[in-house]
Amino acid sequence: MTVSNPPESPGEKETGRLEAFSDGVFSIAMTLLVLELQLPKPSAPTTAASVWQGLANLWPSYFAFVTSFFTVLIMWVNHHGIFRLIRRTNARLMFANGFLLLLVTVVPFPTALVATYLKTPAAGAVCTVYSGTFVIASIAYTLVLVFASSGGHLLVPNSSREVKRKLRDCYLVGLPLYTLATAVASFIPALSLLICSGLWIYWCFASVER
Amino acid sequence: MTVSNPPESPGEKETGRLEAFSDGVFSIAMTLLVLELQLPKPSAPTTAASVWQGLANLWPSYFAFVTSFFTVLIMWVNHHGIFRLIRRTNARLMFANGFLLLLVTVVPFPTALVATYLKTPAAGAVCTVYSGTFVIASIAYTLVLVFASSGGHLLVPNSSREVKRKLRDCYLVGLPLYTLATAVASFIPALSLLICSGLWIYWCFASVER
Amino acid sequence: MTVSNPPESPGEKETGRLEAFSDGVFSIAMTLLVLELQLPKPSAPTTAASVWQGLANLWPSYFAFVTSFFTVLIMWVNHHGIFRLIRRTNARLMFANGFLLLLVTVVPFPTALVATYLKTPAAGAVCTVYSGTFVIASIAYTLVLVFASSGGHLLVPNSSREVKRKLRDCYLVGLPLYTLATAVASFIPALSLLICSGLWIYWCFASVER
Amino acid sequence: MTVSNPPESPGEKETGRLEAFSDGVFSIAMTLLVLELQLPKPSAPTTAASVWQGLANLWPSYFAFVTSFFTVLIMWVNHHGIFRLIRRTNARLMFANGFLLLLVTVVPFPTALVATYLKTPAAGAVCTVYSGTFVIASIAYTLVLVFASSGGHLLVPNSSREVKRKLRDCYLVGLPLYTLATAVASFIPALSLLICSGLWIYWCFASVER
Repeated sequence: MTVSNPPESPGEKETGRLEAFSDGVFSIAMTLLVLELQLPKPSAPTTAASVWQGLANLWPSYFAFVTSFFTVLIMWVNHHGIFRLIRRTNARLMFANGFLLLLVTVVPFPTALVATYLKTPAAGAVCTVYSGTFVIASIAYTLVLVFASSGGHLLVPNSSREVKRKLRDCYLVGLPLYTLATAVASFIPALSLLICSGLWIYWCFASVER
Repeated sequence: MTVSNPPESPGEKETGRLEAFSDGVFSIAMTLLVLELQLPKPSAPTTAASVWQGLANLWPSYFAFVTSFFTVLIMWVNHHGIFRLIRRTNARLMFANGFLLLLVTVVPFPTALVATYLKTPAAGAVCTVYSGTFVIASIAYTLVLVFASSGGHLLVPNSSREVKRKLRDCYLVGLPLYTLATAVASFIPALSLLICSGLWIYWCFASVER
Repeated sequence: MTVSNPPESPGEKETGRLEAFSDGVFSIAMTLLVLELQLPKPSAPTTAASVWQGLANLWPSYFAFVTSFFTVLIMWVNHHGIFRLIRRTNARLMFANGFLLLLVTVVPFPTALVATYLKTPAAGAVCTVYSGTFVIASIAYTLVLVFASSGGHLLVPNSSREVKRKLRDCYLVGLPLYTLATAVASFIPALSLLICSGLWIYWCFASVER
Repeated sequence: MTVSNPPESPGEKETGRLEAFSDGVFSIAMTLLVLELQLPKPSAPTTAASVWQGLANLWPSYFAFVTSFFTVLIMWVNHHGIFRLIRRTNARLMFANGFLLLLVTVVPFPTALVATYLKTPAAGAVCTVYSGTFVIASIAYTLVLVFASSGGHLLVPNSSREVKRKLRDCYLVGLPLYTLATAVASFIPALSLLICSGLWIYWCFASVER
């Protein structure tokens, strides 16, 4: 990769290794989620009915598992969509990407919080943490896009318009709506989750259409 | 990868990163299995005999480990066989692939269920869950193949016939037989497992011969 | 990878994805080892001395960690050395490689067994399990090499002589010595470990010299 | 990769697979950190206040998580910067790299030690372990650079000057300062952590400027 052609301008590198490294973090974050799934421990006699009941009781952890998985998957599709437009990296972009990866690995934690406490009086608190995580993730995506485009020669030729559109999506759509979700979470937890879900559906369709 | 040649038609990308990402999920899913292996905790005096006994008592967890490992390996060989024929991806294919990867990471869970409860009256329930997982996995493989071939220009030239054959394997062989296995699991758990094992041997030979 | 040039002869593929997948398993197996390291839980007052003592008491787990890490590293260097000579794979080679990867993921388990029980009367039993694992690993390496060379067109041109030499190393050096180590383990556990360590030093030097 | 062009001089290989393997270890080490994050278990009634309190009480584990993540990220950026200059590997370089990866996987352990014991009388002991880990990591980086440059033909053409500069950074800056940090840790634990943090900021800027 970086090997065959020696670096022309120092401080800039090809993105192959950065993407491979990021893919590693994404795929591990998705796979580690399964460690949360516990076998049901049926009380008293082990019958078909008690095992079904045990599985049914675990639904919040299944729900958190599937939600976290698709959240990280959508983040990966977006990451892929961004780095398709970037052909070189510098150290600033690497650290911004690292910050984004930190948030990718963190996602399962607030998701588990919500799954555990959604039906308790602490629903407002956990939804605040949950949507707040995505505010920070939006900032991370914005940083990646800003650093990628501010060094214009980091981009694939003719892709600066698409990068700008993605950047607008981040700070005109994602950032304000996630902030709104965080602000209302203490009062109407369900609305906060609704906004987050709505945004994922938007990100999905946005990536499908184009 | 995607870097050297800018994307000709937006919404379609090379598959290098998708495969690397998928490989990550497959390899982690296979490696995480080993976390289930517990050291024997011999009761009373620690002698050679008590440690051997402790190891022997753990056989259901060893069995589940080896079975899960080869199940995920076969799923990987099939995934490899499919993506060998695909040269581009779009968002729909990415999400179908993500759905398939979700099932890859889930496999250890129903396998552990079966290992734990096969000798109890709950055998029917756990075999239903187990074979049901592979019904859903078959649907995921079918979706990947349908989305790959419906956008004909996603395929490697001259490979649409092999894709169609693989698709037939999925919905004429895999899907109905796994559904049958799920249907009979409550009544004859052993038959359900036999059908699943038979299908793996079939997938192995199918991939070896061609 | 497999994408740019459509498969000339069906049933044979480039090895890029197989290596990436194997690398994933190797690197995860090595990294998961660190999960075994526990923080010392100093009894009574938390002083510098009690924490040092707590760390010192954990030495068997540190020893197992470092040993497992380098064992898997040597197995990776050998795997790398073998696949450098292979340019295509078929399904048989994939499954042989999968069997080898199964053993890679298993290595931490017998290592932990030895670390836990070496100073007990069960030393013979755990050293039998330990060296027995490497007998099976030798068989897996042998299978990979046999399947790679039996389909002669799977090899990089002019490399069949080096493959044959590696194969001889497996079944004339590795296999008989590990079998010997397993046979004597019940009677002289230390000798069994000595043979295993000696072989690693041999594999290291063998890979350095060439 | 190694496949398309057969190895010209035996014992030397392209670095693609070594980098992929290393990336795997780095990304897993970073992602595994999240396993340390525990859900708060609020005592008595589950209210918003008690959950916020529970989250606040976990701050040492959050702090350790973020610190470990960025430490490993900086190590990865440095590793990337080094291997950008290397085009071939031999067995010695592989083992030096393996030794470095061992330290990468270990980093979360001393970090957790510091997070747990910093406010106890054992602060000196844990800071000694912590900064001592980075002394050994510096030695590992030095070995990688020495082995890479001693076989001059392992380097990308015209990069030996940059390798020498990096090597000086290791043994004139990193090694002595980390050793100093380790030496003073028992007496002034805070100073030891300050030196380590200062060095990370230095590595960050060093990688950004060039």
